[in-house]
Amino acid sequence: MLNYKSASEKDLQSEYTKLKDEYDAFCSKNLSLDMSRGKPCKEQLDISNDIFDVLKSDSNFLSEDGFDCRNYGLLEGLPEMKRIFAQMLQAPEENIMVGGNSSLNMMFDTISCFMTKGINGCKPWLLQNKIKFLCPVPGYDRHFAITEYFGFEMINIPMLKDGPDMDMIEMLVSSDDAIKGIWCVPKYSNPQGIVYSDSVVKRFASLKPKAKDFRIMWDNAYCVHDFCEKPQKLLSLYDECLKNGNEDLPIMFCSTSKITFPGAGVAAMAASDNNMKIIKDKYKYKTIGYDKINMLRHARYFKDYNGIVEHAKLHAKVLKPRFDTVIDSLTKNLKETSVAEWVEPCGGYFVSVDVMPGCAKRTIELCKQAGVKLTCAGATYPYHTDPNDSNIRIAPSYPPMQELKIAMEVFCISAKIAAIEKIMKQ
Amino acid sequence: MLNYKSASEKDLQSEYTKLKDEYDAFCSKNLSLDMSRGKPCKEQLDISNDIFDVLKSDSNFLSEDGFDCRNYGLLEGLPEMKRIFAQMLQAPEENIMVGGNSSLNMMFDTISCFMTKGINGCKPWLLQNKIKFLCPVPGYDRHFAITEYFGFEMINIPMLKDGPDMDMIEMLVSSDDAIKGIWCVPKYSNPQGIVYSDSVVKRFASLKPKAKDFRIMWDNAYCVHDFCEKPQKLLSLYDECLKNGNEDLPIMFCSTSKITFPGAGVAAMAASDNNMKIIKDKYKYKTIGYDKINMLRHARYFKDYNGIVEHAKLHAKVLKPRFDTVIDSLTKNLKETSVAEWVEPCGGYFVSVDVMPGCAKRTIELCKQAGVKLTCAGATYPYHTDPNDSNIRIAPSYPPMQELKIAMEVFCISAKIAAIEKIMKQ
Repeated sequence: MLNYKSASEKDLQSEYTKLKDEYDAFCSKNLSLDMSRGKPCKEQLDISNDIFDVLKSDSNFLSEDGFDCRNYGLLEGLPEMKRIFAQMLQAPEENIMVGGNSSLNMMFDTISCFMTKGINGCKPWLLQNKIKFLCPVPGYDRHFAITEYFGFEMINIPMLKDGPDMDMIEMLVSSDDAIKGIWCVPKYSNPQGIVYSDSVVKRFASLKPKAKDFRIMWDNAYCVHDFCEKPQKLLSLYDECLKNGNEDLPIMFCSTSKITFPGAGVAAMAASDNNMKIIKDKYKYKTIGYDKINMLRHARYFKDYNGIVEHAKLHAKVLKPRFDTVIDSLTKNLKETSVAEWVEPCGGYFVSVDVMPGCAKRTIELCKQAGVKLTCAGATYPYHTDPNDSNIRIAPSYPPMQELKIAMEVFCISAKIAAIEKIMKQ
Repeated sequence: MLNYKSASEKDLQSEYTKLKDEYDAFCSKNLSLDMSRGKPCKEQLDISNDIFDVLKSDSNFLSEDGFDCRNYGLLEGLPEMKRIFAQMLQAPEENIMVGGNSSLNMMFDTISCFMTKGINGCKPWLLQNKIKFLCPVPGYDRHFAITEYFGFEMINIPMLKDGPDMDMIEMLVSSDDAIKGIWCVPKYSNPQGIVYSDSVVKRFASLKPKAKDFRIMWDNAYCVHDFCEKPQKLLSLYDECLKNGNEDLPIMFCSTSKITFPGAGVAAMAASDNNMKIIKDKYKYKTIGYDKINMLRHARYFKDYNGIVEHAKLHAKVLKPRFDTVIDSLTKNLKETSVAEWVEPCGGYFVSVDVMPGCAKRTIELCKQAGVKLTCAGATYPYHTDPNDSNIRIAPSYPPMQELKIAMEVFCISAKIAAIEKIMKQ
């Protein structure tokens, strides 16, 4: 296979002609394939169907401490679910609050809470001059959308091999008190699948932010979502923070959305006593309690944290071949061209591909014209602006395997066409 | 029976001695009875248990338009639930958004949204000088708690026989642009059980507020919660507003919390296109979608709006005898004393009793000492301050019938003791 960067113009031209023929052949097939969102596939959804047999009309609806889950109350959620989430979030049970069906909702509400109520003696964020948030990139579009909605200035932080650039983070947060937080997906980061190293977690735990109301939004969305033989370990940020008396820094989130069902799972958050005080003081006005019946259903279904881990392995069995397909296709079609790079993840929901700088939009456009839908260009960056126009997030979970193979063929051809077009123009 | 207001001191003294003996007898029984919150009783919860048999592991999980309810998506909720809520909220289907498990949560989020994003070209409420909210009294403590949380100044509006004092409301909202909204429970108001008359609804619909960002928070919590033979009708506020081009005024809420299960039901809101635009623009950042599985469970269980109405009748059968017990006890024990007044409701969850002015705290204290828990004194007023120290909210739904009878005996004796103490001191 041709190395595009060192190939002659003639060779590139003939490669281009060949690729265009292949591409046109795909276009004529009227494909309609979707690799845009991290949605579980039907096979994955079916894994958890028997959770619907857990509660029946003649069930006992009492929580383990005897609370009737069909009635009002228990703002913090069922103790049996708190116990499970404590292990998922690597934080003490007493610092857990179980929420509704969406951890994104809890993140939004946390930011929204800090907009109107000050933390740690500071003014509410809306009443401060300018609020800035650090955004490791590439990252999760829905995180960036929240901070964009509230009008924060977002600052890109490059992701390195073992987490975000801590030198840059330390320098920024210690010098600028307008910087109020950072978005993190510490395990199998979205989209690169990077697990933050022990060193990165420890450096987060010893941050000395200039802003007294700086908070780390620790979205542990993929805490048990391993699909390799040996799951990678994430150090407990909360424990590390405790060692430094820094336990007010992190606010941590997770859910069972990709363990049972997106939208019909259970979400939770963990935070220090000080943070929980502010957050619960909001929630107690906001609701009398979240859906305890769905918590009970989940707690009885999984029994304990180990039940969650074992269940996650069933998802891994479905996901692993899909990720293998993506990585195999990338390796076979793009490796030697040297116009694309990617990280091979051991868990999570995405493969992050950096195509040749200036080629992401064109690659995505070519895919779209051939009937393959990808996440929009720039989606992995704040303000939808990828300064290199290079990063593309591939979500292999949803399409059936056969479709995924074809979609990846189309993707690789498109990335190659876009690269040659770029090189030839230069 | 003695009319306390016209009785001689001697007669009152002997009545007091008799009452104290009866009261002491109750105290020695070590009672532990609760009439404090509008919680359904176990018998009511059992009514809906068969909803848990609606979805099983081998069910079809597709909504009527073919959407897999186990996966992400459908921010506005299932069409079949929107249709049902449209009838409950008396608003068009296309103006409905189905939410999570709690309408209180949606109300909080709506106010929270207006705090940080301006409506109708106005500044966000947090960035305006002072925000005032009108609060019909007696009213719902959790409404007042939300506006207190956000620091609004709350203005008491007296409830009249057919709704809040519209003369006062019209006067206030047309002259003061710091007044941004009003809390309403238009059908079987909390706690009096008053249904707003057609005239009151029409006057709400033709308000001309000085503030361009004034909104009516229309909490139709008891829209189908009738327990008398002939349910009282509420005029559609939305339709009336449409007639006046005032459809941006109301934001309407309801839920199935007291139809299926508190905390495990489904909530919804309705609002004009303009309002929905702002609200959905928040929700789209906040969540990918609410629990569609629970929506599907409810939609299949009830089939349609009529299913809801029929189901509500099963609750009425449990509730009616409880309300009869309360009213009978009040009538038998307090009517002729002329030291208490109440409204006999045809639906809802409460009986509102006005004991002799200056006696509510003392009555509640006496009840507490005898082991009968009531809602705190002042709870039905903003800032927990009942200027007359008179209103007490009785919630008859939760205690078993036998307990309710005893609790009401204790309540009536306590109200009488408190009244005599008050009269004797004067």
